[in-house]
Formats: sequence, C-alpha cells, structure tokens
Amino acid sequence: MVLIWGFARLVGEMDTRTGLPVVGMVGGGQLARMTHQAAIALGQSLRVLAESPDDSAALVAADVRIGSHTDLAALREFAKGCDAVTFDHEHVPSEHIRALEAEGVRVHPGADALVFAQDKRQMRERLAALGAPVPRWAPVSAAADISDFAAAGSWPVVAKATRGGYDGRGVWMLGGPEAAADLVGTGIGLIVEERVPLRRELAALVARSPFGQVAAYPVVETVQRDGICVEVLAPAPGLSEALAVEAQQLAIDLATALGVVGLLAVELFETDAGIVVNELAMRPHNSGHWTIEGARTSQFEQHLRAVLDYPMGETSPTTPAVVMANVLGGQPGGISLDERVHHLFAEDPGARIHLYGKQVRPGRKIGHVTVLGDDMTAVRARAARAVRWLQEGT
Amino acid sequence: MVLIWGFARLVGEMDTRTGLPVVGMVGGGQLARMTHQAAIALGQSLRVLAESPDDSAALVAADVRIGSHTDLAALREFAKGCDAVTFDHEHVPSEHIRALEAEGVRVHPGADALVFAQDKRQMRERLAALGAPVPRWAPVSAAADISDFAAAGSWPVVAKATRGGYDGRGVWMLGGPEAAADLVGTGIGLIVEERVPLRRELAALVARSPFGQVAAYPVVETVQRDGICVEVLAPAPGLSEALAVEAQQLAIDLATALGVVGLLAVELFETDAGIVVNELAMRPHNSGHWTIEGARTSQFEQHLRAVLDYPMGETSPTTPAVVMANVLGGQPGGISLDERVHHLFAEDPGARIHLYGKQVRPGRKIGHVTVLGDDMTAVRARAARAVRWLQEGT
Repeated sequence: MVLIWGFARLVGEMDTRTGLPVVGMVGGGQLARMTHQAAIALGQSLRVLAESPDDSAALVAADVRIGSHTDLAALREFAKGCDAVTFDHEHVPSEHIRALEAEGVRVHPGADALVFAQDKRQMRERLAALGAPVPRWAPVSAAADISDFAAAGSWPVVAKATRGGYDGRGVWMLGGPEAAADLVGTGIGLIVEERVPLRRELAALVARSPFGQVAAYPVVETVQRDGICVEVLAPAPGLSEALAVEAQQLAIDLATALGVVGLLAVELFETDAGIVVNELAMRPHNSGHWTIEGARTSQFEQHLRAVLDYPMGETSPTTPAVVMANVLGGQPGGISLDERVHHLFAEDPGARIHLYGKQVRPGRKIGHVTVLGDDMTAVRARAARAVRWLQEGT
Repeated sequence: MVLIWGFARLVGEMDTRTGLPVVGMVGGGQLARMTHQAAIALGQSLRVLAESPDDSAALVAADVRIGSHTDLAALREFAKGCDAVTFDHEHVPSEHIRALEAEGVRVHPGADALVFAQDKRQMRERLAALGAPVPRWAPVSAAADISDFAAAGSWPVVAKATRGGYDGRGVWMLGGPEAAADLVGTGIGLIVEERVPLRRELAALVARSPFGQVAAYPVVETVQRDGICVEVLAPAPGLSEALAVEAQQLAIDLATALGVVGLLAVELFETDAGIVVNELAMRPHNSGHWTIEGARTSQFEQHLRAVLDYPMGETSPTTPAVVMANVLGGQPGGISLDERVHHLFAEDPGARIHLYGKQVRPGRKIGHVTVLGDDMTAVRARAARAVRWLQEGT
C-alpha cells in the first residue's frame, strides 16, 4: 500500500543542507527535550523556544531561541523558517496563535483546536455538545452557582480553574458553601463538576495529521498521587476489549471533531457506568512516555510526524507489559543523583531511565523510569524499586 | 543484588546544576550524534569536539566545540570539565591521548588500548601473541615481503594500510608481484594477509567498564558490499550456540586483555574452520546500530555507561529478528529526502529511520533503517524495501 498524497506540501524553509524540515516547539521543558531526541532520528534538529538557557530542552538542543511564549514578536521571530510550529505546553495565548496562522505559519494544533486544551469551560461545553461522556458540570460566575450545583447532587464537589491548572494545581475539592465562597472570592475563572465515583483513571492517546490520518495507542491506566501522575501501566490491566476500543474510538472522534493536529491525550475516569472525559491535552503527554521503549513509534516521533503531515507510525506495543513511573524530586541531602543512577543500574540492568536535566526540588518531576516485561505485577514492582532509588537514594 | 563499589569516583567537574556527569566525545559524526541522543536520557548533554558546525552531531548537540582532533591544545581545552573523554573515531594521535591521560583526564579507551584499533600491525601482533584466531599475515616493509608471503600460500593476497582505513578504503586485493610493488611504492604503511575463505562476516560487540564489568551483545551477521557494511542481521541467522558463545567469549577476553574501556566491536570472518578476527573498533560501531531499538540497552548508552563506570545495561534483544540496513547517498536528482521519508512511512509504518543530517553524496552513509519482527526473512525484505525508498526514492 503506497499512498501518494499531498506533495503539494506547504514547505517552509526546509533545512537547505539536509532537505529535511524544521519543527519549532514553543516551550523548553522535558516534552521538548524528548521531542528533540525523536527529531534527531528523523534527521532533524528541533528548534526550541525556551524561557531560559537552563530549561530542560535548552540544555540538549542545538537550535534554541530564548524568549517568552507570551511575546508575539518573539513567537514571530521564532516561527521564521519553521515548517511547523507546535507546543510543549498549553500556555500560548490564542490570539498570538491566530496572528501566526494569519501570517501563514503552520501552527499545530491550531488555535481553534488548542483552546479545548487551554480552557476547561470551553472544553466541557464543546464535549457536551458533541455528546461525549463528561461528568455533570456547570460554569461558575458566583458562589451560588456552586451551591446550586451541589444542591442538585451532593457535596463535596470539584472546582477547577478554567485555565492554567496542571499536576493537581487548579483543582479543589469543596466541602460546602463557605469553601466555595472563599474560592470564588479569589477571582479565578472556575467550573464546577461532580465528584466522579471512579474506579481508576485511564488515558487514550492518539495522533492526527492534517491529512486526517489518526493513529491510536493502547489505552493505559494512570495512577495519581496528590493529583500528580506517578505511574502509567500499559496496557491498562484488565481493561475489557470493548471498553478499550470505546476509549480509543472516543479519542479518535474527538481528535477529528476538534480538528486536532498532533497528539491528543484524553484523560478518562473509569466508573461503574463506563468512561467519562476528565481532561484533554494536545501535546506529548506524561501518560505516553512509556511509548519511547514500549511502542514501535514513540509519542514524540508521532507528534513530529503528525505536525509534518508524515504518515503515522505503528503504535503496537513492543512487549506485553510496560510501566512508566515518574521520578519526583526528593528532600535535599543524601547521595547525589549520579550515585543514585549508579545504584539503580547495579540493581536493575534492564530499567530504562530518562532524566530531564532539572534541578531537584521536592515534588518536581525530574525524570521517569520505564520497565518492560511479560508480567505486569513484576514489572510494576521493578518500576517502584527503580523510582525509590532515584527519588530517595535507597 | 546491590553492588556498592567505587564511589571514590574520580569525579571531574560534574554539571553542577544537575549533579550528573559530562562526557566529551572527540569527533562529530553520526556516532556522536546518536550518543548524544542516549546521553539526553541519562540526564546529560554530550560535549562534542567537531571539525565543523555542519558535522552530524554538531547539528543536534547543545555543547559543541569546534576544533581538530589532531590539535593537542584544542583537545586539552575540550577535556576541561569533562568527567570522561571518549571518541567517535580512531584518529586521535596516541601521543595526544597520553598527554591528556598524564594530566589526569579520564580518556576511555586509553591510548594503550586504542592503538590496537588504530594500527593494524600492532593489532595483529598483539592478537597473535594472545593466541586469538587471526588470518595468516605478515608485516610489510618491501614489495618482496608480499611476494614471499604469497609464495608461502597463493595469490591473490590482501594488503591493508596499517592506519586510517575504513569502509573498504585502505584494503587492496593484490593479484601478483607487480600490483604489490605499485602499492608499496606509494609509501603507505602496510601489512599483508591471506585471503580468508569466508562463509560470511560476523561481529561481536561488548562493552567494558573501568571496574572490569563486561556486557556482551548477541553476535550479528554483517553483510558487506564493495567493502561497506550494508546490512546487519541480529542475531546472526543459523549461528550455532557454540560458535556464538565462542565469539562472545573472544570479544570479552580481548576487551579484558587489551584493557578496553567502552565498546569493543570485534569484526570476524566465519570460515569452515571457525572464526578469525578481521578488525577491532573501540567505539559505537555500525554493527551495533540495531541495538537502538533491538536491544534493551543501546550500544550508545552502553558506551556512556562504560566510560562513566556505571554498571552495564541489559543487552538482551527486544524481538526475535532485527535488521539494520545502511542508507547510502544515491545519485543526485529525483525526489527530495523529505519526500522519500514520506513515502517510506506510508509504505511501512513500522520501519525505524535514523538520518544523520548529512548532505547526500553518492555512496556516503547518510542514515540507517531498522526493522524488527519475528521472522528474519520477512524483516530483511522490509529493510531492503525501506532502504530502496530512502536511497533511490522508488
């Protein structure tokens, strides 16, 4: 099967030396860092817009521009010569993306899609309109909106900042009207949702190209602690084939309906009644880090392929059980990170590590570990031990 | 099993921000490029000494110094702040390496080991002294040495430049005394060897740390065309367990006897009588590119682990059959490399590509493709098709 499509590609200023495209990623965190690794294999060098030369990706990439993602002039300058511009995070203002798009820059995902990963209220409204399964929710403009919402169900309820939350920030469990009033008093834009009686959390990751091809990864289980994803199990253990396909189909449908180009991660709650959508992300996602070794094509390469309108890569797993565990910064003191790596490698020669070059701060994601094997329970235990070495040095 | 050894590590000037080591690699080719990819996962950023900003690794690494590997002052400056210095090629003069070592720089492999990858005559002498299986050979100082050697066996014989040969360069098949006289007349340092009646070529790849730990990869078959490796089959099809173990043991013994730190690739001829050593390389090697996806730990990470005295990583294969095929530059014209990638991805979504960012010149290695699967014949056919797309655009 050879499909010859779209060679009227909107070619920017490809690297004239190699004849290969240049992708620019706004934001210099670990997602850009790992995307750069993937770009290298494709013969490219990721262009990174970093806030600081110490940013995770800026430490390892050759083509780094320093500037703010909120500065349109910096974005314009950055985009010059890029065949596609994409994102390490959701924080670029829509109006800046629209300005770039109006000037002919290929920005993926575009402003019209990205807004549903930027603004939880717009996301909920759109998903509800599409008939996608979502928790019961309501917009909030006054504390009474929260109390009315709770009255129709029960306290506690979950309030979410419409913008800017991540890793548990921007989410509040509210026990009653006073807490609601206090939160609304801060002036943060909010929505309110029912507290979903969840069995566990899942994530469905897909990538979509401008051509419209969509590739879906196996559905994974994500394990959270204090609102932060600490572990991803791929594939989600014990998930029925029917529910797995339903989750993949939902992600494919959403990517298509929202016009996403690049990756779309759909964070899901699994309940007794089925799945509901928690959040959307349109970039490489923590729930997809396992794909670096665990799938034939990593999410980082897949994102590049999508934004460049290359055909999608194979998403099949390389092994029956994969566990990705995040390494969070521990308390100061103890043996150095280098010594911890040394110990871990001595204990488990098969553990795969990914360190992000970040300074260690308690609770900060400084890397992740991936363990692969045949038995999920054994693999999970190895991943937990590996993380303990890197996190606590014991 | 937790081994706690050697924490009296000779720490250089570790990256003070991350507490992780800095490895410097002399030479900016594709081996440094792929080593940088591996370094990123370890939380590091490879420091590269490149001849030009257009070198393969210089295009993608953040910490690039421009200078010549024959310039001791440049090497000294480069080594400052490196926890270990290693090589992308064999061309750094021994006396420069010795000078660095004398000044306390940890250079791996050291000059005493590397010379056996630099000088074929010293290699042959040392291997013969160690009792390793080598072809019948003789040093050459005059044309008569070649004729005498042939008289004791038969023409044709193989002449090799003692230094500087690679990819078929520096190797001559001599049919008689006149050809011998012509070659000797050029003044090139030479050895002469019998033409080995080989069944096929194999390669055994191991890595050794300063602590003395050695890790061995599965033995592979290497397929050459016009003296250039075009294909690597992992594991070598139909190789008996006994011969595979013999080849691995030979590589382990040589790494230990020669005091190699880092990778050692032992290129072998398989004959009816067993295996004989063809060449040695002490760096990431073309015969090990398949390990990026095909082994639990890639040769590039393994080399970094070895030169940093980290415990070695698991070398087990990730899949039953892996084929790595080199992409050589084709004739000018035709569709662009970008379009070729596009076609290949459409045809084979599971093919893994690695492009080196090099300008295409006929016959030049510009990248490689890796295909993984269960059946060697099918995998090999896919790899051949993939290379055809990238090389010829058809």
